[in-house]
Amino acid sequence: MATRKEVAELAGVSEATVSRVLNGVGPIRKQTREKVLSAARELGYTPNSLARNLALKRSGNLGVIMPYLPKARLFSAYYFSEILNGIGSKAQQEGYDLLMIFRNAEEPTDYEELFRMHKVDGLVILGAKDELGEREALRALKQNQRPFCVVNQHFDGEDFPEVDADHVEGSYAAAGHLLAEGYRRIAFLNGPVSYSNSVDRRAGYERALADYGMIPELQLQYEGNFSRKSGLAAARDIAARLQEMDAVFAANDRMAIGLIQGLEAIGTTAAEFPAIVGYDDSDAAEMVTPALTSVRVPFFEIGETAAGQVLSNRAGVQELAGRILLPTKLVVRASSLGSARQEHCCSLSRRLE
Amino acid sequence: MATRKEVAELAGVSEATVSRVLNGVGPIRKQTREKVLSAARELGYTPNSLARNLALKRSGNLGVIMPYLPKARLFSAYYFSEILNGIGSKAQQEGYDLLMIFRNAEEPTDYEELFRMHKVDGLVILGAKDELGEREALRALKQNQRPFCVVNQHFDGEDFPEVDADHVEGSYAAAGHLLAEGYRRIAFLNGPVSYSNSVDRRAGYERALADYGMIPELQLQYEGNFSRKSGLAAARDIAARLQEMDAVFAANDRMAIGLIQGLEAIGTTAAEFPAIVGYDDSDAAEMVTPALTSVRVPFFEIGETAAGQVLSNRAGVQELAGRILLPTKLVVRASSLGSARQEHCCSLSRRLE
Repeated sequence: MATRKEVAELAGVSEATVSRVLNGVGPIRKQTREKVLSAARELGYTPNSLARNLALKRSGNLGVIMPYLPKARLFSAYYFSEILNGIGSKAQQEGYDLLMIFRNAEEPTDYEELFRMHKVDGLVILGAKDELGEREALRALKQNQRPFCVVNQHFDGEDFPEVDADHVEGSYAAAGHLLAEGYRRIAFLNGPVSYSNSVDRRAGYERALADYGMIPELQLQYEGNFSRKSGLAAARDIAARLQEMDAVFAANDRMAIGLIQGLEAIGTTAAEFPAIVGYDDSDAAEMVTPALTSVRVPFFEIGETAAGQVLSNRAGVQELAGRILLPTKLVVRASSLGSARQEHCCSLSRRLE
Repeated sequence: MATRKEVAELAGVSEATVSRVLNGVGPIRKQTREKVLSAARELGYTPNSLARNLALKRSGNLGVIMPYLPKARLFSAYYFSEILNGIGSKAQQEGYDLLMIFRNAEEPTDYEELFRMHKVDGLVILGAKDELGEREALRALKQNQRPFCVVNQHFDGEDFPEVDADHVEGSYAAAGHLLAEGYRRIAFLNGPVSYSNSVDRRAGYERALADYGMIPELQLQYEGNFSRKSGLAAARDIAARLQEMDAVFAANDRMAIGLIQGLEAIGTTAAEFPAIVGYDDSDAAEMVTPALTSVRVPFFEIGETAAGQVLSNRAGVQELAGRILLPTKLVVRASSLGSARQEHCCSLSRRLE
């Protein structure tokens, strides 16, 4: 492939002049301009990766579908930001830019068109829900053999390429830990069931109880929407039944933290405070007091794997795999260990006195 | 503009069939396919915003230049994530997708080309440093009247459209607060001077000292790189001089939190602990103990304003403004109020005992 230097030599100008002409940065004499353009044409000069993409009829963009949540600060959510870090890292390695596409509530979901219009060369789909329009849009991608990958959502009965963590196993470990610590009446604050994630968490929770010959107590089942606010709201209901439970498993850290803050605001004493386990192991888990026991989800690796699947398929290297499940890991901290929680606070106060 | 329904009527097929043909979702009889395509052509049917963009020769993408930091998890940094939320919110309102472009260390900075190749219709530039290549690339945009905006970095002597917060004023408030609280020997943990931000923070710090007839003490000036780790590292040096200072102003929250954690790890007693003020007012400021006094920077509004400037300019509505500076706000918490800090901890321990 021709270089900028060769274009400069053929046109009899400096390399800087070649750049200025190609970038339209004036003033340049018309004659000079024409000499450079004709030399570039003659040598078939493509200045960089962008031009190469154009020549190869690819966009150079890896598309990322983002949920439509007008008020949420998506990039600030640990879940999204870490997955995006993983996707971005892989895209950067492979020389792709990331095209963030926000779902538009007013237009039908049509992923196929993004490929037809050459907006993207591959697609990672975040925040999908199990809805008819979504299934159809994904089926179209599958049928046309587009490189795509669904993250953190499973579509039963389809054979879409999916990357997720094993949330059944993770939730089994979370509830199992509470049971092993001697807690028996474990409330469950889950997310909405339109996410396969919530369904998986329930399965793990129920399996752990079953190991001890127990079934979930109906009056101890709560639902939030994964926001801290919904944890705060649940605190009111949970506070009313504190005598009936000794622990709470929350389906993510934000709800767990909202629950802790809500129970504290109400004035719950240490003796009444339930043991609490969150999920995600977000950075906030280590910052709250008491530090939150949680289930570490390898979000970065999920994003990296999904992008890798899409881009390697794009390059024709391998077939799209089916469903890839990455392992989770329970991280035990003070919030699920009653005595340790008090000790942590006492040592903190001693040091600062 | 023609609708899908009209195409369906003219072709004598259902609307679903029109969609399937245009999306290439088979099987479709060849004859049906041709009828639909000919009807769509005849009516000049453009299925949605993507097609309209294509017809208007615009990409529909708002470009966002991201720094090249191979190991950093950019999307997890409060600074970037909040700015991106603001940019994303405005882009979504205006019907644009976000194209995240990671700076490539191996290729020269060439923003102009992104426009020439129709990859973007406008450009917001994050994490720029004051370097020659950067200045040249921005000058090319300016010369060609491209809609662009530089965020959180000032280029002296240029007339680039810029949006930032008033960091001189913010740092003046931070150091002024410590002085008003009676602290006199105030150490300064700043960021690298290649960012105009760090230069602004120093100016505010020095101006506040000057109000009290003081100048910075040379041995109390420290530099980090805005990471928590660099705050941890600075803690070692600062611990060695605790007798010479009574407060520290850190140029962002992450360094302030690293510093607090570092001093705690060393076993600094409450009596020795300096008052600490951070900067950014990130979500972590409220989560640490003691809660961190900080300067609130309207990152979301900065992103929103920058994207608004670019997109309104794109639409020919208004000229690009010069430098827009948004106001900051000091948020006082326990970390800069010695007595309040101890009280907070005691009440915490009382509640949990």
